[in-house]
Amino acid sequence: MPEPRPARPRSDAVASAMDQLCQCVAAELIQVEKMFDEELRSEAACVNILVRHVSRFRGKMLRPLLLLLTGQACGTLKRDHIVLATVVEMVHMATLVHDDVLDEAELRRRGATINHLRGNEAAVLLGDYLISHSFHLCSSLDSQFASRIIGRTTNRVCEGELLQIHNRNNLDLDEETYIQIVTQKTAVLCASCCLLGAQSAGATDSVVDAMRLYGLSLGTAFQIQDDILDIVGDQNTVGKTLGIDVQKGKLTLPMIHFMKTAPREHRTLLRSLLLSREADKVERIRNLILPSDSVQYAAAHARRLVDRALHCLDSLADAPAKSVLNQLAEFVITRPM
Amino acid sequence: MPEPRPARPRSDAVASAMDQLCQCVAAELIQVEKMFDEELRSEAACVNILVRHVSRFRGKMLRPLLLLLTGQACGTLKRDHIVLATVVEMVHMATLVHDDVLDEAELRRRGATINHLRGNEAAVLLGDYLISHSFHLCSSLDSQFASRIIGRTTNRVCEGELLQIHNRNNLDLDEETYIQIVTQKTAVLCASCCLLGAQSAGATDSVVDAMRLYGLSLGTAFQIQDDILDIVGDQNTVGKTLGIDVQKGKLTLPMIHFMKTAPREHRTLLRSLLLSREADKVERIRNLILPSDSVQYAAAHARRLVDRALHCLDSLADAPAKSVLNQLAEFVITRPM
Repeated sequence: MPEPRPARPRSDAVASAMDQLCQCVAAELIQVEKMFDEELRSEAACVNILVRHVSRFRGKMLRPLLLLLTGQACGTLKRDHIVLATVVEMVHMATLVHDDVLDEAELRRRGATINHLRGNEAAVLLGDYLISHSFHLCSSLDSQFASRIIGRTTNRVCEGELLQIHNRNNLDLDEETYIQIVTQKTAVLCASCCLLGAQSAGATDSVVDAMRLYGLSLGTAFQIQDDILDIVGDQNTVGKTLGIDVQKGKLTLPMIHFMKTAPREHRTLLRSLLLSREADKVERIRNLILPSDSVQYAAAHARRLVDRALHCLDSLADAPAKSVLNQLAEFVITRPM
Repeated sequence: MPEPRPARPRSDAVASAMDQLCQCVAAELIQVEKMFDEELRSEAACVNILVRHVSRFRGKMLRPLLLLLTGQACGTLKRDHIVLATVVEMVHMATLVHDDVLDEAELRRRGATINHLRGNEAAVLLGDYLISHSFHLCSSLDSQFASRIIGRTTNRVCEGELLQIHNRNNLDLDEETYIQIVTQKTAVLCASCCLLGAQSAGATDSVVDAMRLYGLSLGTAFQIQDDILDIVGDQNTVGKTLGIDVQKGKLTLPMIHFMKTAPREHRTLLRSLLLSREADKVERIRNLILPSDSVQYAAAHARRLVDRALHCLDSLADAPAKSVLNQLAEFVITRPM
């Protein structure tokens, strides 16, 4: 008999904000959760234990939400939307599990990561299991269209991740390369969610493309905000290991801006802190950057992207889902998580 | 400008045996190599460097060979066969790259493994890049049939690998579970190669199923032989790190048989050696097992599977490709690599 899945712990404020955003697709999100669990169920007990653990990481369900909301904003939700929303959540979970291996993270959504709990081997294989099941589920649809989009998307996500580790400890990383990494590793999946949601609802080509750009802009803003929180966030609120970018030598937008604009002695200090192995380096970098305007610079960049996302919604007729897409774009840069 | 790919080093005897087996699909194998390189080519130089390195691991091309030969034995080879042969080789390469992370192996086909050379992170991501491209390429075909088969196959491969690490250091592993692991992690991919080769050539359902069983039997025999070589093989001939099963606490068929049949004091010694951290444990286990009949027992099991594979070929009309499938089944248990 399956063990009951433990409730997902989230701060009350965030949970309530997200629940409100999810309301008009709440029934569909429950179907997505059910399909997720059914597709991953295995005859091998040892596999189910890992899968159950990873299910706890399902938090915001941002990607299924994007797919379902664009679908609803562009027409009527069909079974294909449920399948595709499950597919994109699996792809996302796979990247989370492998990311935690790469980052050697110990904490994810207030629970221990798979690699921390069961070792890197189980984490690598569980990520593979998730990505394999996402393609398998996607191939159950009538046409190859979505499989092709998902395949192209994961190709780009992998490239983004490879580009990121190639630039680890590159203290001269420029803003353009940073945006390229963020776009590939995070934003293209959000873009594909919106594209597939709209396309499966029968939207015209120009609306499909507007939705793709909405997802791309929102996804980029989301990752910039994630990177800001990694420096200035509160671990108890965010619920995952913070300061990882600094620990792993990944320069993010606030640091890149600081390196270009701060007084010479501050820049020299940041360089030496980034290269140091001191235990309090994260804290010291945070204290160095916070008084500058580099966090605000990054936040302003994210704000402009959200404005572009909002502009993409102009082509949609007024509807509850459109209004939620509007709020969702604002939420990605105001969220405390 | 791309660097020239270094020649793949193989022992002359093995190379010549394989070349002979490949002869009737030699032109198609060249197309597969070309498609493999083209599909994986990236705009990011850092990605291409990794991909070029992994191309060196392409050795026997057993899986493309199975797909092309069954296709030719059942009808006429089409472009779909080239695409699918490339897809299965990518799937296989992805499992190799991730296996090397799991095994912490340093040597593969006489070259350093990706994880040894570039770290586990690059190896995890490169495996993901390969699996993503395999699905992307597969989704370029007209129908979802092959995508569905490939997805189901990789689901089972992952389950087999997870079952294997779950049974790491299980000194009471039984033969049934061992065969289940071997079937899932190795044989189902070979089975799918033969199924897809036959199906894409327009074979009848019963021939498609016979080919699937041929691949399943051959694949199981192949893995048993691999496991035998891991204990008794010569590293210079085999060309990859040996003794890994013992080092990583994976019981294989010779050891499972030995645990059931050897005199009590030998069994106790094997147990203590498997659990020990002594530097010469691989050598000592080899010397303990070799004089027993446990290696022969495993070899006889592989032999019976090859006989079953040969029997599956009865439904095919006589043709050069059929004769090569015959020789290939013999080769998997006689090869020194």
